[in-house]
Amino acid sequence: MNTADLGLPVAVPSTALFTDQYELTMLQAALRAGTAHRRSVFEVFTRRLPEGRRYGVVAGTGRVLDAVENFRFDETILGFLRTRGILDEPTLAWLADYRFRGDIWGYPEGEVYFPGSPIMRVEGTFAEAVLLETVILSILNHDSAVAAAASRMAVAAGDRPLMEMGARRTHELSAVAAARAAYVGGFHTTSDLAAGFRYNIPTVGTSAHAFTLLHDTERDAFTAQVDTLGGGTTLLVDTFDVTEAVRTAVEVAGPDLGAVRIDSGDLLLIAHRVRQQLDELGAEKTKIVVTSDLDEYAIASLAAAPVDAYGVGTQLVTGSGHPTCSMVYKLVARADSEAPGAPLRPVAKKSMGSKISIGGRKWAARRPDEDGVPEAEVVGTGPVPEELAERQLLVPLVRGGEVVAREPLDAARSRHIAARASLPLSATQLSRGEPVLPTEYL
Amino acid sequence: MNTADLGLPVAVPSTALFTDQYELTMLQAALRAGTAHRRSVFEVFTRRLPEGRRYGVVAGTGRVLDAVENFRFDETILGFLRTRGILDEPTLAWLADYRFRGDIWGYPEGEVYFPGSPIMRVEGTFAEAVLLETVILSILNHDSAVAAAASRMAVAAGDRPLMEMGARRTHELSAVAAARAAYVGGFHTTSDLAAGFRYNIPTVGTSAHAFTLLHDTERDAFTAQVDTLGGGTTLLVDTFDVTEAVRTAVEVAGPDLGAVRIDSGDLLLIAHRVRQQLDELGAEKTKIVVTSDLDEYAIASLAAAPVDAYGVGTQLVTGSGHPTCSMVYKLVARADSEAPGAPLRPVAKKSMGSKISIGGRKWAARRPDEDGVPEAEVVGTGPVPEELAERQLLVPLVRGGEVVAREPLDAARSRHIAARASLPLSATQLSRGEPVLPTEYL
Repeated sequence: MNTADLGLPVAVPSTALFTDQYELTMLQAALRAGTAHRRSVFEVFTRRLPEGRRYGVVAGTGRVLDAVENFRFDETILGFLRTRGILDEPTLAWLADYRFRGDIWGYPEGEVYFPGSPIMRVEGTFAEAVLLETVILSILNHDSAVAAAASRMAVAAGDRPLMEMGARRTHELSAVAAARAAYVGGFHTTSDLAAGFRYNIPTVGTSAHAFTLLHDTERDAFTAQVDTLGGGTTLLVDTFDVTEAVRTAVEVAGPDLGAVRIDSGDLLLIAHRVRQQLDELGAEKTKIVVTSDLDEYAIASLAAAPVDAYGVGTQLVTGSGHPTCSMVYKLVARADSEAPGAPLRPVAKKSMGSKISIGGRKWAARRPDEDGVPEAEVVGTGPVPEELAERQLLVPLVRGGEVVAREPLDAARSRHIAARASLPLSATQLSRGEPVLPTEYL
Repeated sequence: MNTADLGLPVAVPSTALFTDQYELTMLQAALRAGTAHRRSVFEVFTRRLPEGRRYGVVAGTGRVLDAVENFRFDETILGFLRTRGILDEPTLAWLADYRFRGDIWGYPEGEVYFPGSPIMRVEGTFAEAVLLETVILSILNHDSAVAAAASRMAVAAGDRPLMEMGARRTHELSAVAAARAAYVGGFHTTSDLAAGFRYNIPTVGTSAHAFTLLHDTERDAFTAQVDTLGGGTTLLVDTFDVTEAVRTAVEVAGPDLGAVRIDSGDLLLIAHRVRQQLDELGAEKTKIVVTSDLDEYAIASLAAAPVDAYGVGTQLVTGSGHPTCSMVYKLVARADSEAPGAPLRPVAKKSMGSKISIGGRKWAARRPDEDGVPEAEVVGTGPVPEELAERQLLVPLVRGGEVVAREPLDAARSRHIAARASLPLSATQLSRGEPVLPTEYL
């Protein structure tokens, strides 16, 4: 096993314990009842987008593939389950040989989605597919939430680069996945070294107020930084007085200073002042980087300001108000018996209120209008209409247990940018609205 | 290295890459400037609580200790930093020998905190202390956010047990830390097997709608579950018709059925109906477990309902509206030179607006009123007043690089319950309000 394949900058012997206990006890009950090996189809979807959002972004697919491949029960894990009395011996014996041998289809990573879109479909026996529920949802719910926020920020930022800087505001390993998801959503760089190590995302950094405060004067601090990182570095200019700091920065680094960073105060006002001052000092090419609790709205509000790049932390890694998606993993069809070839029967929860699901193994396609612009997300359980056959959204990800859809992260990033650009223009309005495409069920 | 010491259910060769790049480039600049070894004091604090919250909960301290111990730069990591051109050779050489040799003080895990409380204080050279910023903040910001939500839910639940079930709604390793933080905040169990494995938190599980749908009838599903898990199990009764399901459940399991779970619909109404039905069926001891997007307000609204236990997912792991704290790690004092024994000088950012800090190495104590109830969080930089000497909040966590404050997780949980109980009564109002203790600076 290659540690670097695991979506983590750490050696993970297995992903099998990232699992709710009931997945295993349901397995045990089904094994004993003779229903565990009924062919089953589970689908991942969300019933709604976060309030006001116009599209969702599929992210984490690559991490799901890693997690599925490494979902194995080794002796340590089996020992834990045995000692705790969670499972009986026949179930433990079955798990010892477990690997997923079924098929997984899904929207490719970076694709957009809407309420009801079958983002992922897991097909196999009930036993082998039910076990994957928790870890698949963990990954997709987290990564897609961050990617959706990133995508909106990327729209707001236009051509200006976005740096992901949120590691300190989320779990240390969430941070790595968040940097990855942000990149898929359109960010350019990350401050998180583990994300650079694991995913080869370009890493960046400036400096902190602590560095200025460590030195006897701001000039000493700037000199120290320029001495070792060169004049192309980014100097932080808001520890004491911004005007004074900008003057000192250009004196120390010369007019070819790479950039200055502003991390507090009225960014719009200060950016204008700093730009004017830099220009007057001859530092016309020195860039202005802003950070400080930015979200997509703050970024948009700076569109007319002389800002060259944005660093975003908290609001990115917490999904800008929506830290998780509400994706669920539902059994939509299963065979009536364990006999090979037994036909699939659609199933769905029927009780009460808002948790209704639609049974049946689904396909999905995005129907274009006469101008080729998508006008509906079509989800169906029957045959695919001929005119939609070439527009289907689900692609094979795993076949017979083998991952068939590995791709570089840049492919997902490019796919997202293209998918977003293909949507009706109102998709990229930041204001609250309905999903930009209606979902139609056939 | 003991994998089990790492706060993760996985082998982590090092926590050193859970770090923003600028920590390392600041180190390089300071090494070259001859300032890296100035004695420095960094403090972790938050300027405000999430809006409306009355207290914060320190969580993650134990995980910080693990992360500090394992913050090492091995050949793989150094090779990455070298290949990427992030650092120069003298800095890489310095990192190769790095381990933290300073002191860390902090509020013990489970303690409550308020705006300005110096939750953690890291003392050492600038070089050794600045590197820890990102990972310390990641852990404390995440874990404390979850613990604060958990604590409010525990207040709302009163004597009824709380089950953590949020793994599927957050990153798979966040989920493990979230289960841990929830336990500190007052939860009783978790569905997350990795959290059970790593932290020995009791694990629980019921079953999912998929299990019922797998079977030809609900009765078959209940029979399968009871056959292998016994009559003490919890049956999920809202897949089709609740009344029908409750009847079937008691028929299958008998009147000693452990519990039924309701996961949708109007929980208040349904709980009353189900209780009445269970009682009529003679299943007077069968418990009612409710789940379904619960938060502290929904839990409180069910206080008068015949509910025996709550399962909480999304709102717990996302901090019930506040998925991160706003803790920062600030240089508050440093020596004027690298000479041993050079005196510390208070330092603080001075520029603009809301990010003002107070310089100086701080102590903190909770001052009681005449009845012994805390009336203020007192934070000072000078000598500790005699009457507060015995009421100081910071305890030694690391001395000369050695962890001195390991404790079982139950100690943190008990400490939190006691700390919360000691606060003025208004602390546990769920409605929005000011911090229940004012912070006074001496």
